[in-house]
Amino acid sequence: MAHIKLPEGLPGIRGPMAFRPETAKPLNELADALLHGPNTLTPAERELIATYVSSQNDCFYCQTAHGAIAAYHLNGDEALVQQVKCDFEAAAISEKLKALLVIAGKVQTGGKNVKTEDIDRARQQGATDMEIHDTVLIAAAFCMYNRYVDGLATFAPPDPATYRDRAGRVARNGYVNIMKELSAFMAGQTEGTS
Amino acid sequence: MAHIKLPEGLPGIRGPMAFRPETAKPLNELADALLHGPNTLTPAERELIATYVSSQNDCFYCQTAHGAIAAYHLNGDEALVQQVKCDFEAAAISEKLKALLVIAGKVQTGGKNVKTEDIDRARQQGATDMEIHDTVLIAAAFCMYNRYVDGLATFAPPDPATYRDRAGRVARNGYVNIMKELSAFMAGQTEGTS
Repeated sequence: MAHIKLPEGLPGIRGPMAFRPETAKPLNELADALLHGPNTLTPAERELIATYVSSQNDCFYCQTAHGAIAAYHLNGDEALVQQVKCDFEAAAISEKLKALLVIAGKVQTGGKNVKTEDIDRARQQGATDMEIHDTVLIAAAFCMYNRYVDGLATFAPPDPATYRDRAGRVARNGYVNIMKELSAFMAGQTEGTS
Repeated sequence: MAHIKLPEGLPGIRGPMAFRPETAKPLNELADALLHGPNTLTPAERELIATYVSSQNDCFYCQTAHGAIAAYHLNGDEALVQQVKCDFEAAAISEKLKALLVIAGKVQTGGKNVKTEDIDRARQQGATDMEIHDTVLIAAAFCMYNRYVDGLATFAPPDPATYRDRAGRVARNGYVNIMKELSAFMAGQTEGTS
């Protein structure tokens, strides 16, 4: 049970987002800018960074939700997503993405742990300043989202199919649209009780 | 030196915010909703939570910037801010705020570390669901801001006077206005080089 009373029927981060729309709006806009907006990193690459950091933070909801979105962008290759979570250096991904995942992993343990040699490795693999910036901010942002989800003890459906079913819609429509979904859900709840 | 090339003359988080306005906008809107917007927690209480979490994350820039804003709201009582950072249980703050700082400290170490007894203690001191929610999200958000600032190795002025000088303006105007400041700064930079 969640630590505070949240709207029922909204798993993971969507419960507290419906509870507090004033903070949900920038939270969704940030996710959209980082994961869905124009970028030289592909949506799959960015979702893999989010998934990896969430797995390092042991956040079941976020790693499963974003893992499913990453897999959607990878034509359903869930095995690759698992491989990135378990041992990305051995995964069939670019050397640039491996170098960015090293940076993301360092950010997860604390910002000061990112070292010049980590940045050098990424640059040698062709990473731009913007890509390094976005990697650091995606990793930092998921240290927030993960703590938000687990710090309130929100409910996470155990069945991976739940996340798979939703992944395509989020992948196509982005994160800002989640605000509309939440508004519609809350309007329906209010109608139901009136 | 920062890990990526950032606009010069903008300390801490303002460098990467000017570098990437698309993400700066929701980052500032989130800070504004949490720290400056309407709330039953006072601005001083919320800034103390932000300062405490930033000190636990050893982020000099954020703990000094938000510590100065907290002190501004506390009529300049910098000693109280230091006391909260070092040993909040012994500080001259409310029992409710102490209980919320326990929750914030747990969130800082990982969302799952928040236990039912931590929530119970806060409720016994009169904390509402919204106050508990906002405490968790402030703590989670500063786990992001701190990692963003330090993960890019941004420059932090060492002199506390720098932060003190700025604190009143941010305390009065809020965080959304920082976007205007950054736009004006960048426009000035462009003019200077044209």
